[in-house]
Amino acid sequence: MIAKFFQPESVAVVGASREESKLGYRILKNVIEAGFPGRIYPVNPKADEVLGLKCYPDITYLPETPDLAVIVIPSGLVVEVVRRYGQRGGRAVIVISAGFKEAGEEGKRREEELVATCRQYGVRLIGPNCLGLMDTSSKLNASFAFDMPLPGNIAFISQSGALGTGVLDWSLKEEVGFSKFVSVGNMADVSEGDLLEFLADDPNTRVILVYLEGVRDGCRFLRVARQVTRKKPVIVVKSGRTSAGLKAVSSHTGSLAGSDAAFQAAFKQAGVLRAGSVQELFDYSLAFAYQPEMTGQRIAVVTNAGGPSVMAVDAVERAGLKLAVLSKETKDKLKSFLPVAANTANPVDVLGDALAKPYGQALETVANDSSVDALVAILTPQVVTQPRESAEEVARVARSFRKPVVACFMGGKRIEPANQILAEKKIPNYPFPERAVMALQALSYYHRQRTREVGEKLTVSPDSNRVKAIFQSAKAQGGILGDGDSREVLASYGIPVIPSLLTTSAKQCGEIARKVGFPVVLKLVSPDILHKTEAGAVRLGITTKKQAEKAYQEMIEKAQQYHPGAKIIGIQVQKQLEKAVEVIIGVSQDQQFGHLVMFGLGGVLVELMKDVTFRVIPITSSDIEEMLEEVRGIKLLRGFRNTPPGDIEAVKDVLLRVSCLVEDFPVIKELDINPLMVFPQGKGVLAVDARIALNFSLTETEAKEK
Amino acid sequence: MIAKFFQPESVAVVGASREESKLGYRILKNVIEAGFPGRIYPVNPKADEVLGLKCYPDITYLPETPDLAVIVIPSGLVVEVVRRYGQRGGRAVIVISAGFKEAGEEGKRREEELVATCRQYGVRLIGPNCLGLMDTSSKLNASFAFDMPLPGNIAFISQSGALGTGVLDWSLKEEVGFSKFVSVGNMADVSEGDLLEFLADDPNTRVILVYLEGVRDGCRFLRVARQVTRKKPVIVVKSGRTSAGLKAVSSHTGSLAGSDAAFQAAFKQAGVLRAGSVQELFDYSLAFAYQPEMTGQRIAVVTNAGGPSVMAVDAVERAGLKLAVLSKETKDKLKSFLPVAANTANPVDVLGDALAKPYGQALETVANDSSVDALVAILTPQVVTQPRESAEEVARVARSFRKPVVACFMGGKRIEPANQILAEKKIPNYPFPERAVMALQALSYYHRQRTREVGEKLTVSPDSNRVKAIFQSAKAQGGILGDGDSREVLASYGIPVIPSLLTTSAKQCGEIARKVGFPVVLKLVSPDILHKTEAGAVRLGITTKKQAEKAYQEMIEKAQQYHPGAKIIGIQVQKQLEKAVEVIIGVSQDQQFGHLVMFGLGGVLVELMKDVTFRVIPITSSDIEEMLEEVRGIKLLRGFRNTPPGDIEAVKDVLLRVSCLVEDFPVIKELDINPLMVFPQGKGVLAVDARIALNFSLTETEAKEK
Repeated sequence: MIAKFFQPESVAVVGASREESKLGYRILKNVIEAGFPGRIYPVNPKADEVLGLKCYPDITYLPETPDLAVIVIPSGLVVEVVRRYGQRGGRAVIVISAGFKEAGEEGKRREEELVATCRQYGVRLIGPNCLGLMDTSSKLNASFAFDMPLPGNIAFISQSGALGTGVLDWSLKEEVGFSKFVSVGNMADVSEGDLLEFLADDPNTRVILVYLEGVRDGCRFLRVARQVTRKKPVIVVKSGRTSAGLKAVSSHTGSLAGSDAAFQAAFKQAGVLRAGSVQELFDYSLAFAYQPEMTGQRIAVVTNAGGPSVMAVDAVERAGLKLAVLSKETKDKLKSFLPVAANTANPVDVLGDALAKPYGQALETVANDSSVDALVAILTPQVVTQPRESAEEVARVARSFRKPVVACFMGGKRIEPANQILAEKKIPNYPFPERAVMALQALSYYHRQRTREVGEKLTVSPDSNRVKAIFQSAKAQGGILGDGDSREVLASYGIPVIPSLLTTSAKQCGEIARKVGFPVVLKLVSPDILHKTEAGAVRLGITTKKQAEKAYQEMIEKAQQYHPGAKIIGIQVQKQLEKAVEVIIGVSQDQQFGHLVMFGLGGVLVELMKDVTFRVIPITSSDIEEMLEEVRGIKLLRGFRNTPPGDIEAVKDVLLRVSCLVEDFPVIKELDINPLMVFPQGKGVLAVDARIALNFSLTETEAKEK
Repeated sequence: MIAKFFQPESVAVVGASREESKLGYRILKNVIEAGFPGRIYPVNPKADEVLGLKCYPDITYLPETPDLAVIVIPSGLVVEVVRRYGQRGGRAVIVISAGFKEAGEEGKRREEELVATCRQYGVRLIGPNCLGLMDTSSKLNASFAFDMPLPGNIAFISQSGALGTGVLDWSLKEEVGFSKFVSVGNMADVSEGDLLEFLADDPNTRVILVYLEGVRDGCRFLRVARQVTRKKPVIVVKSGRTSAGLKAVSSHTGSLAGSDAAFQAAFKQAGVLRAGSVQELFDYSLAFAYQPEMTGQRIAVVTNAGGPSVMAVDAVERAGLKLAVLSKETKDKLKSFLPVAANTANPVDVLGDALAKPYGQALETVANDSSVDALVAILTPQVVTQPRESAEEVARVARSFRKPVVACFMGGKRIEPANQILAEKKIPNYPFPERAVMALQALSYYHRQRTREVGEKLTVSPDSNRVKAIFQSAKAQGGILGDGDSREVLASYGIPVIPSLLTTSAKQCGEIARKVGFPVVLKLVSPDILHKTEAGAVRLGITTKKQAEKAYQEMIEKAQQYHPGAKIIGIQVQKQLEKAVEVIIGVSQDQQFGHLVMFGLGGVLVELMKDVTFRVIPITSSDIEEMLEEVRGIKLLRGFRNTPPGDIEAVKDVLLRVSCLVEDFPVIKELDINPLMVFPQGKGVLAVDARIALNFSLTETEAKEK
């Protein structure tokens, strides 16, 4: 279906105009001038002919139903045209016109009507309020941008039309080719997900670039992108930090999940490569468009200049790549034709007076070394340097090996002809070493993502009825579960929780403490007091019955001072645990992507350093492995100084079970397990404090269906 | 003296050649062709005339002593030429020739001889093994680079000649002008410090760029740069991570100070702006070369396109700058001439169909708002956009206000003529919004550095003799001071240390513990056991005499197991302290910059997160303020959750005293105060554990003199 937008056999331009200043003129002109081989129908009641083509007064009167209708008329008239187009069986429409969702309440209503009309007739819609699209293989320029890009294998989906014009203009100067360009506008119907899905199987597209300010349907985006990235790289620039994704939150997890956490998580899970800027987007796209897959991380640098190669080596280290260690044979061969002063270890320095031939020979020798996964070819214009011929050598070597080769020809005027050759021969070329290395890092990241195992999910057999009952009764209490209920929910999903008993009098407290066995911990239970330590509602190291009784009294009093009128349910008595590493596992909700699960090490690492990581639920075992890698404090769990290695397997298991719980009960709005105590290897974990908040704007049934 | 290199009245080229492939030909040609107005003397025994100039067989026979001699002959002959030049009173020599320090042992000796010869005759030397230098104001091109750069106000000092050629070539293409370019080569004599000092007062230079791989004299660099940056910005790219700066270290501080810590610290203390790459170096240099000082942090964005302005706003946030809040007057004025759909709040969006006039008017209106400190003018090429005229508008507005204006004209072909105008009118112009914003961040950073207070140092009246005596006796013990001695040294410098008593028997331990008052802490004292917790050599919470006795026995046994044969001095008994925040203060040594002082929060924040910061000793109160700002964990000291604010003033005082101590006793190699307990505001600090290691490769007297 989406294919009709890109490879139509006939196109109508509704609103085609004879006035050169009008978009309707520009678009028709673009369709004609790009060399579109199919039938073109201008539609405009006020003209008989536009740009030499017969013009029709209304879409109804066209001699055929065009495969694609491009609409550029005042917004108030759009819906009626789409209706007529749909009625006669049309299926693909691009609405260029503005005046919809972006233009206040009336526009919003108009957009809703437009979408309803499309749905009614099975018409798919790109836009409204967009620049249009281009396809270099079908020679279609259904946009009001000036020039068609050169043919190539990069597809670009942009949520900003203006950025699109900038990019297209740039591409002509840099001689970079595109397969398709789509400006999606308001995304009322066709979304980034639809386009990704289509482009995944487009034979003309090798790499997909996306400029994103938000997604329409986060879950679909994640699902589709995950599949697409198995086939080809998707590189995204995400901009626009909005607080829209942040609901009012009361939990630790919620307050740690900034608006970007969900995107960051989703990109990782989907294997999407995130570029930090449009410049990076371009830099990476060249490497993907022109070079083979990078199957390892060992980089070799060949240079005619010391300084830039030092920078490249620094960049390799920063990027987490490795400097290849060249074999003795390689070094011997290099020695056989390079001057004595040349450096034959990586980075290979052929010296400033090298001509193109030894430069190319060095490149070839290094590329031939099986310990090299990718090459950076650096050149600066020195006295005898042959930039042009050296560029030819880089291209020759790149062609001969199935390894990525990127160039860094530094300079300006003298390097210009060489840059020209590199562009023609499709060698990614960057003006600075850092950018060349970053591009290789992108290739390496993508290879790891594409080949990464999906991982497994867990199936648990929980006591769902118990959980349902608890949630039902929590509804009456405003949807916040107490510590006891929360821990019971966790236990129902097989998550180990610390046994504890609730007391409601000082005397009982003392007795239970004695039964549990000293030392014990006392914790106040109150739905109104969330941050317990601040309210003095936790007491550790109680070693006698008397202490327990006294502490009971004091805690109740202090709580009443801290929060007068707070509902106090009682005090929980728990055995004080042996020393263990504390971690935090939590769940928060994002408007675009749904539930996120968080993991981090407890204490100051969470509080001060925000050393936590997120993933969109559901998660797999592979996601969990990566989460653990990302948290710097994980070293504590792996055994650090006098702390023995913790039971990491048990932690992973809890993460999987939390994911299952939330999948089964999307009514959960927030969840904190803080702390989860992690004992030494083989000794398991225990959830000590837990807190669950439900979202009763959804009924449970709706939530289930969602 | 250095001025002679740049503004000589006569230049000799020793090794001037008639063969075009020789550097001696290229250099003489460059001197002539750049239009040098003074006398030029080729020197070569094998020619009577080179490039139309009379050639002399030897520097001795020149009709005058040239102000500058450029030497490009085989390395073995250089010393003799310099001797003769020095003998007849010459003072400035550039040695282009390679074959010195960079070329093995013989070269190293040759370089030493060269330097000795220069010293003997008072000759200053640039190089050897360099590209030479250029000065556009005196029309001197004493290098073998191809082209002279355009005149301008940027000076560039490069430790890589090849990088220099790349940069010069780039500058011609981008039409960026330079005042001076110097390739320093091996820096056998004239160093980056000498050149910085000279350029600080050069009226033709407004900003100084430095490509650095290392410094010859870190202390001098720091001292000079600190002064220079008060006058004009110094931007440095530092590359080359070498482990040379890392000596064998046994302390926490030492292991945390990577090879880059000293540079990072020195740059901050000197107010030097560090660029992350050569691209950033250029980006920043344009802003400094062309725009006025940026006195505030409030940025306004004017754009004709939504997407790029979103990116700019993101970048402003990331850069720690602020989005200006426009006044009502400004917004009203914007409304008076912009279309209704335009956005008149910052970022101001004039919409895609804006012509140059309203675009310029919007820029002017915004620039006129006193709440705006700097502007970013964004333009993308849309249908009716007037890039050329819009560029003129940007230049017009920039001229009218004393506020930095940077442009971001995105695109390629269509934007080219506009880029040309912006370059001519000296408006820094960047292809992407992030780079434009980063350039403003650099301006803002420099303004803060230039106007920052130097801060004060502390004068303490220590018991120096006691410290000397302790150090003297430590010499016998391999230079490592025990905890007791270390704490005594600290106490001599007025740093509060926890009182403690040493015991050497279980019985005595029990008695002393009772005297000190329970609970107590026991600590094993052994010069062989450094990481105490790992050896079980610390016991907390001892509450009875019996416990103390038992613990004594166990600790001695465990220590003997952990490190058989370890020398055990005894066990220290300390009162167990109230809860306090732990910080770490340490000192380590760097080969290039000398002593560094480190500050960080204790525990996992240091161990895992390396949340620490360094400064070169001596430090001032301003340095300390900045150190505290840089440590993320500082929030703990400022009062966090149920931790009350700590006595930060007392922490600052300890940092100043440590700096004094190390200044007085440079024999100190490493020092750790770990932990320093910080009590609530007004309650002071206490050094609990301390460790000092001395460096006896220096005698104390030498160290004092150093």
